[in-house]
Amino acid sequence: MAENHSLFFDAKSEPMEFTVTQIANMLGGQVSGDGNQPIVMLAKIQDAKKGQIAFLSNPKYEQFIYTTHASAVIVKKDFLPKKEIAPALILVDDPYSSFTVLLEEYHKLISFQKAGVEQPSFIGSNSTIGTGHYRGAFSYIGNDVKIGNNVKIYPHVYIGDQAVIGDNTILHTNVKLYADTRVGNNCIIHAGTVIGSDGFGFAPLADGTYKTIPQLGNVVIEDNVSIGANTVIDCATLFGDSTIIRQGVKLDNLIQIAHNVEVGKNTVIASQAGISGSTKIGENNMIAGQVGIAGHLVIANNTSIGAQAGISKAIKEEGQKVLGYPAFDIKEYFRSYAVFKRLPELNDRLRELEKKVSMIDSVSIDATSNGKHAD
Amino acid sequence: MAENHSLFFDAKSEPMEFTVTQIANMLGGQVSGDGNQPIVMLAKIQDAKKGQIAFLSNPKYEQFIYTTHASAVIVKKDFLPKKEIAPALILVDDPYSSFTVLLEEYHKLISFQKAGVEQPSFIGSNSTIGTGHYRGAFSYIGNDVKIGNNVKIYPHVYIGDQAVIGDNTILHTNVKLYADTRVGNNCIIHAGTVIGSDGFGFAPLADGTYKTIPQLGNVVIEDNVSIGANTVIDCATLFGDSTIIRQGVKLDNLIQIAHNVEVGKNTVIASQAGISGSTKIGENNMIAGQVGIAGHLVIANNTSIGAQAGISKAIKEEGQKVLGYPAFDIKEYFRSYAVFKRLPELNDRLRELEKKVSMIDSVSIDATSNGKHAD
Amino acid sequence: MAENHSLFFDAKSEPMEFTVTQIANMLGGQVSGDGNQPIVMLAKIQDAKKGQIAFLSNPKYEQFIYTTHASAVIVKKDFLPKKEIAPALILVDDPYSSFTVLLEEYHKLISFQKAGVEQPSFIGSNSTIGTGHYRGAFSYIGNDVKIGNNVKIYPHVYIGDQAVIGDNTILHTNVKLYADTRVGNNCIIHAGTVIGSDGFGFAPLADGTYKTIPQLGNVVIEDNVSIGANTVIDCATLFGDSTIIRQGVKLDNLIQIAHNVEVGKNTVIASQAGISGSTKIGENNMIAGQVGIAGHLVIANNTSIGAQAGISKAIKEEGQKVLGYPAFDIKEYFRSYAVFKRLPELNDRLRELEKKVSMIDSVSIDATSNGKHAD
Repeated sequence: MAENHSLFFDAKSEPMEFTVTQIANMLGGQVSGDGNQPIVMLAKIQDAKKGQIAFLSNPKYEQFIYTTHASAVIVKKDFLPKKEIAPALILVDDPYSSFTVLLEEYHKLISFQKAGVEQPSFIGSNSTIGTGHYRGAFSYIGNDVKIGNNVKIYPHVYIGDQAVIGDNTILHTNVKLYADTRVGNNCIIHAGTVIGSDGFGFAPLADGTYKTIPQLGNVVIEDNVSIGANTVIDCATLFGDSTIIRQGVKLDNLIQIAHNVEVGKNTVIASQAGISGSTKIGENNMIAGQVGIAGHLVIANNTSIGAQAGISKAIKEEGQKVLGYPAFDIKEYFRSYAVFKRLPELNDRLRELEKKVSMIDSVSIDATSNGKHAD
Repeated sequence: MAENHSLFFDAKSEPMEFTVTQIANMLGGQVSGDGNQPIVMLAKIQDAKKGQIAFLSNPKYEQFIYTTHASAVIVKKDFLPKKEIAPALILVDDPYSSFTVLLEEYHKLISFQKAGVEQPSFIGSNSTIGTGHYRGAFSYIGNDVKIGNNVKIYPHVYIGDQAVIGDNTILHTNVKLYADTRVGNNCIIHAGTVIGSDGFGFAPLADGTYKTIPQLGNVVIEDNVSIGANTVIDCATLFGDSTIIRQGVKLDNLIQIAHNVEVGKNTVIASQAGISGSTKIGENNMIAGQVGIAGHLVIANNTSIGAQAGISKAIKEEGQKVLGYPAFDIKEYFRSYAVFKRLPELNDRLRELEKKVSMIDSVSIDATSNGKHAD
Repeated sequence: MAENHSLFFDAKSEPMEFTVTQIANMLGGQVSGDGNQPIVMLAKIQDAKKGQIAFLSNPKYEQFIYTTHASAVIVKKDFLPKKEIAPALILVDDPYSSFTVLLEEYHKLISFQKAGVEQPSFIGSNSTIGTGHYRGAFSYIGNDVKIGNNVKIYPHVYIGDQAVIGDNTILHTNVKLYADTRVGNNCIIHAGTVIGSDGFGFAPLADGTYKTIPQLGNVVIEDNVSIGANTVIDCATLFGDSTIIRQGVKLDNLIQIAHNVEVGKNTVIASQAGISGSTKIGENNMIAGQVGIAGHLVIANNTSIGAQAGISKAIKEEGQKVLGYPAFDIKEYFRSYAVFKRLPELNDRLRELEKKVSMIDSVSIDATSNGKHAD
């Protein structure tokens, strides 16, 4: 989200200004017009105001360059204005990708813009936190917590006892880490996500009630992991065991990761998918929305699982694409489904055939008899 | 939920009393019995106590009117008691709908009952809030936020920088609005819902890792929108773009709305449904629970999508009802599914037929030969 | 989750030490070696350090007993070391179940370890709370709330007005109870779960908009109920009515329970399942992940519903196992699905048969004619 409309910020979260020339240098472009104008924001060419920079890539939008209030516009280096234009131009090879570079720079800066400690916030005994951090109001840090440098802890975040968090990690508002959770470097976790809640473990008793199986493990999130909003990752069952999200994994919103699951490196899981207990997902999997995967399975690397599929047994061969419940090869699924849609017609044809065959049957027996009689 | 058992409240959140006669006037009914009794609460006739008002509509419940402790009962105007009765009566045309009117009045009042500011609560710099508001303890309002009149902000709500909220909107406990979110007038958002989290955008790199695509847009919620609990709505990807929930939309709990989605006017979406990125849902759609809709689709107005359906391509014609994955006409789905349930039988019949035909085939060839021989 | 690594805690949450002999007595085992060593933690034999106790059950792990740094190891009473060993031994009948006893004791202790009141926390007027409680920082308790003994309220918990909570119940961080919610004894509710939010009730109006139906009931959670993280349970619609979760029910994460639902005694519901409004689920049901159940249904006792199934009509007979959408007998589902996977082949066979029959048809008619001619 756009945390702030200002383009850049200094260490005190004050918006910083760059001149058009400074931005041109950043992009390896050339300035045409007044390079001393201050720029504080990015905008679309049709909406831009004074102090803002826009880009022109698609010729359809050329009309706007003659009316925009932008202070600068990034254009292709061979752009020739047909009329007089007000904004300064930054001439580059590819305006869209230059604008994207600016956007990414902007995003990185705003993500790490927040700094300092808002009050009231809570920090328990024996907890340490590195430099450059932000701790929002009403954030809670328990006892014996270790937090690295440049970590951003938004308001209402909860960090349980003995948790460990690496450098440059962002915990958005109301992220909840149960005690003993480990989060690596460069992770982003979005609002409302719960990490380390009890796995769903209950042993049936003779009287029909259930006994709770203690859940004593934790969750380990490695480096460069992104997790969406309101997702849940349960802790491992046994003391010393971990539910593990390997480096580079990207999880969307409202996902369920049960106890003792391991999600392999660089796997991407879309919204509302659920992985049952003790399943090991391979590396570089693509798991679509609302997929369900049963427990105690191993899923090979590079598996692609289509939306809403249900996986009920291990996938051993790498690189498969599957769909359906239980899931099988996606092309075969679609072929079967094409026939499924015509099943009433098939049924009619089968009945028709049965009638015919039953008629032929009697007739041909007659014929045969006749034939035999004819002998 | 029942925020308070008292029927009405004055500006200071103190319960207010009405007399039976005052309520009768409100409902356009007539009083039989003591109209001066004070009423402070609504109840069912079988549970009601002194100071409470009940209704009698279904004759099955008539027995309770002779034993109830209610101070008043709303009855049909031609109701003739068979025994002596204690409560005052309010005689109306339709007791159930009169009671409903009271319930609605009650609901409106309790919803807006909370007022004032509880401490500690946090409000950043340069933020404004209108009259008649409630700000619960531990609520957080960032910088440059604009909030209208009569807005109720429950405890643990988070409102990011530059957010804008209209009049008469209720944010229940722990609603989370990322920076720059817009919420209209007369909206209700339930507990734990996240609005404006990053869209799920990652570009694959050659080494198998993913690069995060900055998510710089926002979310716009128009007027008269209701959103359930623990739902997530992601922000748009590009700066200046919005994920849009149009006026009158009703969203249930645990729903996923991805980046750049637009949900059309008066569309209703039930629990645990998920809409993928950039899809445009038409107006007055009915989307049932656990439905999944793929990305970049356009869904026509007045579409009805059955529970757990998966939508993988655009729906262009208005007024369709669909089911299945991929979804198609709901009646056809049920016809196909009816045959699906008998597939083993169909398979057997097909096999049987194959046997017969293969027999007939040889026999009839014989017969034919015989016939031919007979020539 | 592992709230703390120390084995036992006294009333002030200080870790307590037990000697090896004390633990042996607890387990009814015998000590071999130094029984006076202090034990403060449980660990796996391969990871254990000084001051920790491990167990050896599977012979595969015997190697570790000769190298472990554990102060004590629980072993089978007939265990004969093949080399010299450092740790004290506790000799028991079944090391694994003895270790489990210890784990459970540990779990019980850590779950109730937290005590006292952290500040700032909020408690409204006229609310009472029993002895032995924990109220975390930023927890919110409204007015007229009644809370039993030994209740643990973690940081960021929200308890609305008039709520009632029994003894020995744990509300993990950020649990949200709307006003008037009832929670029984010995319940555990995990982080982010919402109880009592408005049911999804809207009446269509002539102009295409919807009128909100006031939701005035509450939620009742009976004793010994466990609820996972980020689950949502809506309140009942009518004043005086309740959505009810009966005793012993176990709910997983991200589940949707709609208004006026009743979940019967000892029923277990896995993650991301959704139950629609007014449905009554029987006792001892097993409902798997991502199941959807339509509204206004009655589901018999001892029903087992497979993952992702959709239930669209009542299940009247007890003890059924169902799958599919709409769900039917699970064995029949799998039989049908086995044929579904071969539908393209079936279709080909049917077409083949049609060709043959059409050929035979003409031939056999010829044959018949021939036969007739042969007469």
